[in-house]
Amino acid sequence: LAVDRSWLHHQLAPEAWRGHGLSPVNRIFLAIVLLSIVAAIVQTEPTIGGAHPVPFLLLNTIFAALYTGEYALRLWSVGAAKEYRGLRGAARYALTVLSVVDLLAAIALWLDVALGVPGIYGALLRLVRVLRVLTLTRRSDTGSAKRIPVHAVRSRAVELMLSLGLAGQVLLVSSTLLYAVEGHDQPEAFGSIPRAMWWAVVTLTTVGYGDVHPLTTIGKVLAGLTAITSIAIIALPAGILAAAFSDAFQELRHKSEEHGEGHESLHEGKHHGPH
Amino acid sequence: LAVDRSWLHHQLAPEAWRGHGLSPVNRIFLAIVLLSIVAAIVQTEPTIGGAHPVPFLLLNTIFAALYTGEYALRLWSVGAAKEYRGLRGAARYALTVLSVVDLLAAIALWLDVALGVPGIYGALLRLVRVLRVLTLTRRSDTGSAKRIPVHAVRSRAVELMLSLGLAGQVLLVSSTLLYAVEGHDQPEAFGSIPRAMWWAVVTLTTVGYGDVHPLTTIGKVLAGLTAITSIAIIALPAGILAAAFSDAFQELRHKSEEHGEGHESLHEGKHHGPH
Amino acid sequence: LAVDRSWLHHQLAPEAWRGHGLSPVNRIFLAIVLLSIVAAIVQTEPTIGGAHPVPFLLLNTIFAALYTGEYALRLWSVGAAKEYRGLRGAARYALTVLSVVDLLAAIALWLDVALGVPGIYGALLRLVRVLRVLTLTRRSDTGSAKRIPVHAVRSRAVELMLSLGLAGQVLLVSSTLLYAVEGHDQPEAFGSIPRAMWWAVVTLTTVGYGDVHPLTTIGKVLAGLTAITSIAIIALPAGILAAAFSDAFQELRHKSEEHGEGHESLHEGKHHGPH
Amino acid sequence: LAVDRSWLHHQLAPEAWRGHGLSPVNRIFLAIVLLSIVAAIVQTEPTIGGAHPVPFLLLNTIFAALYTGEYALRLWSVGAAKEYRGLRGAARYALTVLSVVDLLAAIALWLDVALGVPGIYGALLRLVRVLRVLTLTRRSDTGSAKRIPVHAVRSRAVELMLSLGLAGQVLLVSSTLLYAVEGHDQPEAFGSIPRAMWWAVVTLTTVGYGDVHPLTTIGKVLAGLTAITSIAIIALPAGILAAAFSDAFQELRHKSEEHGEGHESLHEGKHHGPH
Repeated sequence: LAVDRSWLHHQLAPEAWRGHGLSPVNRIFLAIVLLSIVAAIVQTEPTIGGAHPVPFLLLNTIFAALYTGEYALRLWSVGAAKEYRGLRGAARYALTVLSVVDLLAAIALWLDVALGVPGIYGALLRLVRVLRVLTLTRRSDTGSAKRIPVHAVRSRAVELMLSLGLAGQVLLVSSTLLYAVEGHDQPEAFGSIPRAMWWAVVTLTTVGYGDVHPLTTIGKVLAGLTAITSIAIIALPAGILAAAFSDAFQELRHKSEEHGEGHESLHEGKHHGPH
Repeated sequence: LAVDRSWLHHQLAPEAWRGHGLSPVNRIFLAIVLLSIVAAIVQTEPTIGGAHPVPFLLLNTIFAALYTGEYALRLWSVGAAKEYRGLRGAARYALTVLSVVDLLAAIALWLDVALGVPGIYGALLRLVRVLRVLTLTRRSDTGSAKRIPVHAVRSRAVELMLSLGLAGQVLLVSSTLLYAVEGHDQPEAFGSIPRAMWWAVVTLTTVGYGDVHPLTTIGKVLAGLTAITSIAIIALPAGILAAAFSDAFQELRHKSEEHGEGHESLHEGKHHGPH
Repeated sequence: LAVDRSWLHHQLAPEAWRGHGLSPVNRIFLAIVLLSIVAAIVQTEPTIGGAHPVPFLLLNTIFAALYTGEYALRLWSVGAAKEYRGLRGAARYALTVLSVVDLLAAIALWLDVALGVPGIYGALLRLVRVLRVLTLTRRSDTGSAKRIPVHAVRSRAVELMLSLGLAGQVLLVSSTLLYAVEGHDQPEAFGSIPRAMWWAVVTLTTVGYGDVHPLTTIGKVLAGLTAITSIAIIALPAGILAAAFSDAFQELRHKSEEHGEGHESLHEGKHHGPH
Repeated sequence: LAVDRSWLHHQLAPEAWRGHGLSPVNRIFLAIVLLSIVAAIVQTEPTIGGAHPVPFLLLNTIFAALYTGEYALRLWSVGAAKEYRGLRGAARYALTVLSVVDLLAAIALWLDVALGVPGIYGALLRLVRVLRVLTLTRRSDTGSAKRIPVHAVRSRAVELMLSLGLAGQVLLVSSTLLYAVEGHDQPEAFGSIPRAMWWAVVTLTTVGYGDVHPLTTIGKVLAGLTAITSIAIIALPAGILAAAFSDAFQELRHKSEEHGEGHESLHEGKHHGPH
């Protein structure tokens, strides 16, 4: 049994798995999570989930049982690791963020089964499961190639925050201006700065639903200038991220060059130069 | 005849052609394919193709004959290549994906002529011909300069997949949230997660048709946050591709520098440094 | 008192502060400015600020007092600096752009309190306060990492201006063309070049409200070409900025490499190379 | 007079001007062109140009006279250059593209004055003047810093063409698919491939007017996939241009480093390299 527990621990805990990517058992559980999300999505559709509640009730029961089983196995097998040995170790593991999310997801699924409602309450609980996939992705994030986007984004966090701050100021200025010039004519759309902000966000992100837009000439001129500014709002983070990725890839190549044949490491034999 | 067959094979098979780009015969066939697509597009327009069916029937007959002729010539001339010699070789060539697509395109065109309908059935078959142009482009992809975009995109496949996965998760979370807060007021637009996904895709890609959009304050706040996230959804792949292209071009320059005058290969004469 | 004035000067004047980022006192004032902006935004909303005027009157009085106090303290403490000593120095400081903006913001806030109106007049004056935050950001711009975006954008000012100029020409050509082909059918939307420019800006920035769009076939063809051009209008500044950021980051790394371990500084020990 | 002609030639011909940017005389003429375009734009507005025809008639007469004068001066002064000496030289100069455009612009302006109509005919002729500004920009394109965008775009012409070709194929496939699935329900919007192309262009460029959009579930799924593809359509040219600009800037720096202090040119003489 001890061998089985250790084997299961290596299968279930991504940090204990020595192979490439996810372990076979975790791949199966990831597939189950994805399937349960697809089922939850489809169930919300009245013409499918509303018309045929029984198969979805059955499906949810199976998924709830699988979620509970996974949680129990994880809690039991984690004892194979030194830091989570014994009852106290299991309790400590049970209080980690991921474990609590696991438990909540299982409970939420059982509640959905018990209530049998694909209503607003169920959907919000299902969202927890969706977010769980996000954490799963984070866990599987072990390969160095996969880390580049995360590293590139984090290394330019200050620049990205600054460009977000700039976008926020442009948002504030443009919504204030349109509140001033269009607020009187279109009180519903521009009657207050918070209302005008809906227009400003939709314009600055170039989404442009068209549900609200200026009607006066001066409003159109200001909206046009806002729209032109939106290009900078998009181009700035794109440029920062492009530079960050370029830098991250180049660093990777520099490293591999230093260890490999190396373009820069010229006279290694004779000069014993300090590298 | 053997010389003619060999000449035709070099003209028809892009891999046998030693000149730059496409051979003269393949250029003519590409022009025919493009013309037949333009004809098919125009024929679907009721005010043109529907009003004057006869000239289009004639055109399609000519194109069908040309397609069939090209297919036959290609099948005959391929025997000039060692690997497709004899009847067995011709059969093997006929079973390659491109040959099957060629044959299906010819059959589809004859069916359109026989039925004389520019309806839904004909359009889907015409699509095969459109996809054929895509394959033609792939075939003509021999120059190294042309390969850079393909190489750059492929070398960052993992990163692009990750940013697509991130976009998918944002899509799921935002559509679930708007289903929760707007589903009750606008059942047609947000009454299920699949329905809300239409809004989410249109918003996250910044297309923003405006056919569906939130009406409640909380819905607008969440939609605004989704719209702001859309900038990252676009900036991430743009940044990855920019870095990939930058890298591909630099690699190309590094190589040409190594073979050419070379900025880095400094002390070749004296030090005999290991490069 | 002299020590207190010197201490206050170091707290209030960002250029005198030797610590990282903003001084504690300036952080508090920044928070007050942000809070007063949020209050002003919320006050414009009729269902909140219009329904409950008294608490907002109280809030604005407090903010006005704090603004005035900050202005007075800044004017008194600046005397601790050599260049602003004495009455003449204080007068010189009071005439700097930032001080005038500070004073105007305080006066505007008192006027809002006195008039008690969250109308169009108050909103435009509140905008001054918003712009003040922009200047505050500029002041806090002391870290070298934060300067990169500003430097990157400035170093490519000529290129960005050129791409803006190109966008302007495309705007002019496309709005003239659509005025010519759609002006007769849709006089309200395309009846003059200035009117068609609203459509052109909304299209070229890919906002696309959909309030105006061509209806004729030739108009749609021209609008389609304009929409395709819009990709270049966005890709050009994005590309310029990406290159500018990439360059700025690389320069930073070059510098740190020269001072640090350095990849390029090869033969330091033996050859006495001058670095 | 010969000296005056030579002086005028150096002032009017950008290639003969030795100073930085545009000569003073050409700056004045550029201002006149820009003013005449603004006047033409404003004149098309019925509430301004239609209501007050007399001042615009006066303005246009002045501009027509200035255009004609500029053309005559240019033709006369070009004789100062060796290659355009004598009557034959003047005739050769008059037949260059720019001279013909100059002459046409002047004639068009006189025709507008004579007809006194700001109608569709006048607008299209005014477009010639707009395009003339484009050529003026091209002429003033002498600084090396200004040439980078032009050089960067041109050096990646093949890649940009390929991404445009890819966009065209996506356009064709998506419009064919939506014609197939939505053509029956919405004949006006999707009843033929050319009609569906309007939707496809508006979607792929993320403009998204919202005048036409799919209504069926399968249509929305295909439109969603098209919208997702649109990100690649924008990211690809942005990435190519970013890499092109990055390359152009780096090349510029490489060159200045080679001529200046130089990071790479280490041990040129013996080892006492000049740094």
